[in-house]
Amino acid sequence: MSGSGSSARRMERAVAQATAAGFTGVLVTPGPDLVYFTGYRPTAITERITMLALTAGREPVMIVPALERPDAERATAAVSLTCWDDGADPYAAAARLLDPRGRYAVSDAAWAMHLLGLQRELPESRYVSMTAALPMMRAVKDAGELARLAAAGAAADAAYEQIVGVRFAGRQEREIGADLAGFLLEHGHSQVDFTVVGSGPNGANPHHEMGERPVQDGDMVVLDFGGLLDGYGSDTTRTVHVGEPSPEERAVFEIVRHAQQAAFEAVRPGVSCQEIDRVARKVIRDAGYGEYFIHRTGHGIGLTTHEPPYLVEGETHPLVPGMCFSIEPGIYLPGRFGVRIEDIVTVTADGGRRLNNTSHDLHIVA
Amino acid sequence: MSGSGSSARRMERAVAQATAAGFTGVLVTPGPDLVYFTGYRPTAITERITMLALTAGREPVMIVPALERPDAERATAAVSLTCWDDGADPYAAAARLLDPRGRYAVSDAAWAMHLLGLQRELPESRYVSMTAALPMMRAVKDAGELARLAAAGAAADAAYEQIVGVRFAGRQEREIGADLAGFLLEHGHSQVDFTVVGSGPNGANPHHEMGERPVQDGDMVVLDFGGLLDGYGSDTTRTVHVGEPSPEERAVFEIVRHAQQAAFEAVRPGVSCQEIDRVARKVIRDAGYGEYFIHRTGHGIGLTTHEPPYLVEGETHPLVPGMCFSIEPGIYLPGRFGVRIEDIVTVTADGGRRLNNTSHDLHIVA
Repeated sequence: MSGSGSSARRMERAVAQATAAGFTGVLVTPGPDLVYFTGYRPTAITERITMLALTAGREPVMIVPALERPDAERATAAVSLTCWDDGADPYAAAARLLDPRGRYAVSDAAWAMHLLGLQRELPESRYVSMTAALPMMRAVKDAGELARLAAAGAAADAAYEQIVGVRFAGRQEREIGADLAGFLLEHGHSQVDFTVVGSGPNGANPHHEMGERPVQDGDMVVLDFGGLLDGYGSDTTRTVHVGEPSPEERAVFEIVRHAQQAAFEAVRPGVSCQEIDRVARKVIRDAGYGEYFIHRTGHGIGLTTHEPPYLVEGETHPLVPGMCFSIEPGIYLPGRFGVRIEDIVTVTADGGRRLNNTSHDLHIVA
Repeated sequence: MSGSGSSARRMERAVAQATAAGFTGVLVTPGPDLVYFTGYRPTAITERITMLALTAGREPVMIVPALERPDAERATAAVSLTCWDDGADPYAAAARLLDPRGRYAVSDAAWAMHLLGLQRELPESRYVSMTAALPMMRAVKDAGELARLAAAGAAADAAYEQIVGVRFAGRQEREIGADLAGFLLEHGHSQVDFTVVGSGPNGANPHHEMGERPVQDGDMVVLDFGGLLDGYGSDTTRTVHVGEPSPEERAVFEIVRHAQQAAFEAVRPGVSCQEIDRVARKVIRDAGYGEYFIHRTGHGIGLTTHEPPYLVEGETHPLVPGMCFSIEPGIYLPGRFGVRIEDIVTVTADGGRRLNNTSHDLHIVA
């Protein structure tokens, strides 16, 4: 957020997008959507409803628990507040902000409890999740957001340059992950969200984080790490090898590298999200490893590390300049090893630009 | 969790409670409910649906994203797994676990996005939030849980005993909060969730965390702090004074102390939750400060720091031995100061037992 001016503009744009898509308005609950519009982060996300209602022709209004009013007032100048007290029915109060027959886009992670409260209070109202209703609401980043994402990417790159210099063989995945987390913090991250260190067979589980396993000479090691810097996310993966790789390991690595490169080169405005997934998948399938690429090719990144646009079959939305997402194909050979290469990429006027820029060569570590 | 035996028992009990309350089953998403039943904590709670379905006469089954299957398998022996792949419609897959005309209790914090997906897939199905449907599902703690809550309370007490020895006057709230967080960690907390240091006028905002304000001689200071120890929550408040209090400050403090004591003494099986709130509120109202007690008297605690039972007007559920909750009346004089005293209390066979046991005297700090 660069102040309440950008806050007001973002809210106006969301209302316009919602109206164009046939919605009465947008309902925003604590989390990245609320930070995006107002900068407000309640101390905790709790069973007490906080919700910003954005509706055409009405001033933005946020309902907050009475005892959080002082914090909300301090945090957000751009919206007016309405309160509810403990013991009162918060959904009756929230419902007064809504059109009883309205159709609303609602934050994906809004609590089911709150949605059910609104549905009960206003049985004729209708709701669609933000990702389904206005998937691209936060997808196109402005200049300030792009600068922050680039800074987060550069910091992750610096952490990678350091981690390849540490000792791998004989140390537990957990210890290497701790080194990596330390480097991310050293380079300005306020928060480390994940440090995957998947050595040998553990690398074949894309969501394995890290464990007690001592890394061994001859291991492939998937390093996937990220967090937040100045409120925006980093997320990058490199696969390294301890000592000399086998011909098969090198071959699998090269397939993933080609898939990542081909997908990157396919990025330009107007191409569909699913097309990027198809390009990466084709390279891997043509090489005979299709069944071992078991996840989508990428996800958007911004205030969160997983958000639209998703690069996945069925996502037909076209790429637009300013979008930022991961491109991260992988091959996972159960019980043996995995390879993944991931960069954050932003769409430019005529192609794509990487926000991660460390080498894609198979780095040999000690 | 003390193993898959207790996991199975908890799932059976939930199904029985759900059936008795007229529900088809219970839908559990990542967070405390899922930890309670299975011990499973996905690496992150994301847009990819993970959901445990508990239904009478059917084996417990959990749907997970394919790429999280290995983690889920390792974590939970007590449920069978079904997977969905990126690109497939997860709600079609999840809907196959449900009765199309069923009525389900669903975790409060389940994502609205997931609930809307199920509602779209099964338009005849009905949902009620867990707190509304089965509010007391996790409210009665077993012996293992009580031991952990008592350990968390004792650690918070030890942190309080230390914090009253530090220098207050002239130091920022933030610095004192950092000391407090350090003491909680030192005494075994794995995580500090909040350290409220509300000095002078900041104490009149119950949810003020801590800021730059230097604490001054003559300040009331509200200290409200807690976190997790061995997975279970602590949450305690003491109000201290820097130097000698004024007669009015002492009087307000004594009213809150009496309200807390009266509410504690009212605790016994069979008394309603709202009755505890009424008892505390009456003491404060009779003293002329009713309008300055602006929140409910307490909340349950366990795997989370806010959960049923809520001690609030309208909550008619009777207290049951094994329930654990805060009793935390307060008086907040805007622009001046606040006082709150909070203990965690558990219901015994014939009364209540405090899990926080530091003195309720107004402690004078330096």
